Amino acid sequence: MPQLRLALAQVNPTVGDLVGNAELVVRRTHEAVRAGAHLVAFPEMVLTGYPVEDLALRRSFQRASRAALHSVAARLADEGLGGTPVVVGYLDHDEAAAAQLGVPRGAPMNAAAVLHGGRVVARYAKHHLPNYGVFDEFRYFVSGTRQTVVRVHGVDVALAICEDLWQDGGPVAAVAESGAGLLLVINGSPYESDKDDLRRELCATRAREAGCALAYVNMVGGQDELVFDGDSLVVDLRGEVVSRAPQFEEALLIVDLDLPAAGESTRLPDGEPITVISPIALPPYAALTPTIATHTDRDEETYSALVLALRDYVRKNGFSSVVLGLSGGIDSALVAAIAVDALGAENVYGVSMPSVHSSQHSRDDAADMAARTGLHLRSVAIASMVDAFESELGLTGLAAENLQARVRGVILMGISNQEGHLVLATGNKSELAVGYSTIYGDAVGAFAPIKDVAKTRVWALSTWRNARAAERGQTPPIPPSSITKEPSAELRPGQLDTDSLPDYAVLDDVLDDYVEHDLSAADLIAQGFDPDLVHRVLRLTDTAEYKRRQYPPGTKISPRAFGRDRRLPITSRWREEG
Amino acid sequence: MPQLRLALAQVNPTVGDLVGNAELVVRRTHEAVRAGAHLVAFPEMVLTGYPVEDLALRRSFQRASRAALHSVAARLADEGLGGTPVVVGYLDHDEAAAAQLGVPRGAPMNAAAVLHGGRVVARYAKHHLPNYGVFDEFRYFVSGTRQTVVRVHGVDVALAICEDLWQDGGPVAAVAESGAGLLLVINGSPYESDKDDLRRELCATRAREAGCALAYVNMVGGQDELVFDGDSLVVDLRGEVVSRAPQFEEALLIVDLDLPAAGESTRLPDGEPITVISPIALPPYAALTPTIATHTDRDEETYSALVLALRDYVRKNGFSSVVLGLSGGIDSALVAAIAVDALGAENVYGVSMPSVHSSQHSRDDAADMAARTGLHLRSVAIASMVDAFESELGLTGLAAENLQARVRGVILMGISNQEGHLVLATGNKSELAVGYSTIYGDAVGAFAPIKDVAKTRVWALSTWRNARAAERGQTPPIPPSSITKEPSAELRPGQLDTDSLPDYAVLDDVLDDYVEHDLSAADLIAQGFDPDLVHRVLRLTDTAEYKRRQYPPGTKISPRAFGRDRRLPITSRWREEG
Repeated sequence: MPQLRLALAQVNPTVGDLVGNAELVVRRTHEAVRAGAHLVAFPEMVLTGYPVEDLALRRSFQRASRAALHSVAARLADEGLGGTPVVVGYLDHDEAAAAQLGVPRGAPMNAAAVLHGGRVVARYAKHHLPNYGVFDEFRYFVSGTRQTVVRVHGVDVALAICEDLWQDGGPVAAVAESGAGLLLVINGSPYESDKDDLRRELCATRAREAGCALAYVNMVGGQDELVFDGDSLVVDLRGEVVSRAPQFEEALLIVDLDLPAAGESTRLPDGEPITVISPIALPPYAALTPTIATHTDRDEETYSALVLALRDYVRKNGFSSVVLGLSGGIDSALVAAIAVDALGAENVYGVSMPSVHSSQHSRDDAADMAARTGLHLRSVAIASMVDAFESELGLTGLAAENLQARVRGVILMGISNQEGHLVLATGNKSELAVGYSTIYGDAVGAFAPIKDVAKTRVWALSTWRNARAAERGQTPPIPPSSITKEPSAELRPGQLDTDSLPDYAVLDDVLDDYVEHDLSAADLIAQGFDPDLVHRVLRLTDTAEYKRRQYPPGTKISPRAFGRDRRLPITSRWREEG
Repeated sequence: MPQLRLALAQVNPTVGDLVGNAELVVRRTHEAVRAGAHLVAFPEMVLTGYPVEDLALRRSFQRASRAALHSVAARLADEGLGGTPVVVGYLDHDEAAAAQLGVPRGAPMNAAAVLHGGRVVARYAKHHLPNYGVFDEFRYFVSGTRQTVVRVHGVDVALAICEDLWQDGGPVAAVAESGAGLLLVINGSPYESDKDDLRRELCATRAREAGCALAYVNMVGGQDELVFDGDSLVVDLRGEVVSRAPQFEEALLIVDLDLPAAGESTRLPDGEPITVISPIALPPYAALTPTIATHTDRDEETYSALVLALRDYVRKNGFSSVVLGLSGGIDSALVAAIAVDALGAENVYGVSMPSVHSSQHSRDDAADMAARTGLHLRSVAIASMVDAFESELGLTGLAAENLQARVRGVILMGISNQEGHLVLATGNKSELAVGYSTIYGDAVGAFAPIKDVAKTRVWALSTWRNARAAERGQTPPIPPSSITKEPSAELRPGQLDTDSLPDYAVLDDVLDDYVEHDLSAADLIAQGFDPDLVHRVLRLTDTAEYKRRQYPPGTKISPRAFGRDRRLPITSRWREEG
């Protein structure tokens, strides 16, 4: 059987950075060629970054993507790498496409190119365009219809892009017919909790269907609300994992495969030509031992996703430091711990903003957090500012509570504007779901790292992070009392979250069923939840849509996160009545 | 030729309000039947409101929509209206649809039903699902594939829904083959500037293609960022307008048509049955004189759209009054005028919030606005609150300017929370495009009425509104000096918008080309714009995406408005280099 050494480059591109992304491709191809790779593959739309959203419809960007592709091909050859085929994702388009209502302008395609000898020798356009969850690809791309197979050292390699693999009856059936020896799939597949298990099973199933080995290369890194986890992998034709990259870091996965020799024909069953790059199998060589990264448990996986997403949001937006309110509570403590892990304590600025309702333990816990991690801490008492508003406006009740939160928001934004730190909002998914937050108050921020993390998971991740530190002989970053105390917004004397909300364990269960699984009130009551509680939580959730719309972007880790995923009208009279 | 009296019910439903929308249908059907109508038609998805977004995927909502449909059918019959066929839009679904990746859950359909004799006698599901601009229908619906024709008093009436009409080669071709006498199209077609002309031409073209008369019934009213303008119309088979409803108000358009008699066959050319409701033509009767509403000029049309959108956003969200900052400048003056026209002066609360940098004319113009319109005005000087922050934080430069805007935001939100008014943000499209606003400051608000109105159009609409008042012998609502003075944010001594921005006439031209038409820097320079100015404006626009994401919703009046239409990554390194 012919051998092939494959390099899967799990890299972290930035949307729109055609120059930087091209540089990534060249640099990793050098590394792959030095490692003896015969075929190098990069993720979906690596040259443009992903998702590019409306940039896909901009003629100048379409042309720039194509120009960047040709320039990378030439540069690889100039730098002595032209002999190794390299597969890259990019934005293609049809320059001559006529304008047509409902067809994206310029007929953009989510495409893959095979670069060899300084040229683009083969192209493939994604067949299946996902338009659910975080994906809007019908808006941006036209579908490809043709198969692409390249022959490399006597092995036929078929190409596919991301969703092509997920759809039953996708190009996999055609691959089986074509008799290809390897199905190479390039991906921009965002992280969701536990998606790695699903992905491995999918690759195994499709490899068995195609009757050949399958190589899956994924992007890594944060892009706005998405975080790509990498998890590139190779399975053999029985679906067994041969090699696998870690999650949440860049990697170059090098793997030697024994693959079936290509047939005589240089045409596919449908008559399309196979692009023959090198028809003859290599002489046998000693294969490397493949690496298989061990996958982590759920808490570590989620925590790592949050750290990477925050780091990239800050870095890719041109910031290097962050500022956040440190209340002494668990939400801001977890966000601070994530920020310290992402950016280093020297780049994290905490602000304690006590009011007359703040307890001593809140102040102490904020100070303890700073002492444990080394983050910068300052204290700004809010009384004088609150008083200045109160004496003009005379606010009471909820308006007075919100005022305190908004004064804190103004302070954080003032420090941000003055010193250049990006503001982090510290709200969690449970409170955001039910609207238990102050718009323009604690919702202030450029990024909300735990926006998609339910309160019960906030505690779990905090406990995990501290335990991990203890295991390693380090100081646990989060004050234990921040984890154990009763949650309170401290906006009025003796206030507790449970004055307004059910216990978080129950609340999170209801929200998971309602938000993630779209169950009805009747379904929830049938499961045994108290009907009054169900109606109360659902009503709070239904009416909080407006606040959610104006909440800052945050890391998406669940299938139906708030933000790009869940899309509800603001004005809606629909109520679940059960 | 058989006659038919058609009633097109141009109504204003609310998303999710199944009970209220059903009530609308029953009430207007009574009215139509009293007027002698033989066929009554309501807009696309009138029972659920439109667009329902993720509600379409919720099983309980799908079932509730179907139940509402059957209940309306029964109620119409119970109330003696069962003899008149009524066409209503609703959300249908396939209860038995198996879950499949990429297919919306429950296989929802954007559907029309014909109600007669207490029952649903025919159904039609939209064939063409728009997924561009404000539309995301691939995410929410599965396509219909079948034609539906009902025979009413000896005339064959073919059904279609909205996008079916816009697509070349849509169901219109099948209508021509079927020999139907009338094509009835139900719509939820949002307003855009000058779309009424386009719509009339489209209806004329399709009528000629189908070889039959065409009746077009559209929704009216505001729904979140969209405003539906009505503009229902009927054209004959030559494309001549027979009757037309006004824009921006509810209407019941009654029109008598002479239509070709149906053939003998009760099957369509593809073998599908025609639903025969009443096979025999009516005895001749005296036709009513059709009404053709005159359409208004561009300024009046836009202004009316803004008034209706604001009124419905406030009303449908359960508010009755609004509060806004009145700076004396033109933006807040126009928003106040719109609010007074939408809600009445007694429901508009203006707040003058002078600082040390506020000019006397600003205070005077705010007072003049109140005197002219009768809106409530109070004054809250911001110095003490600004000082309270300054003495703690010592902000300078832009941070100090933003602080003033944020103090005003906190004041407006405090009043809103205390008194229950909805806050209006007064920013215009030009400043939003280039990021010339303070996030959590002047961007505070639940609704931004002129978010999609360029600054030059703000002046034009203000001038138009005052001239209209003068024509009618009323007091022009907007202080003339607010229109004529140089724009200034008044956040530092002597500040003018032109310190930071080009003249608005030039800026708006560049923005129109860049935002609405996606031209490149090179295209703009080729048109004769100064290259430095082009690069400066494009860079400001490219980097303001983050602010735009957190800006409140606002009325959409242009094809590529900010908000639901224009979708760009926040993190993007792409720069137009020209």
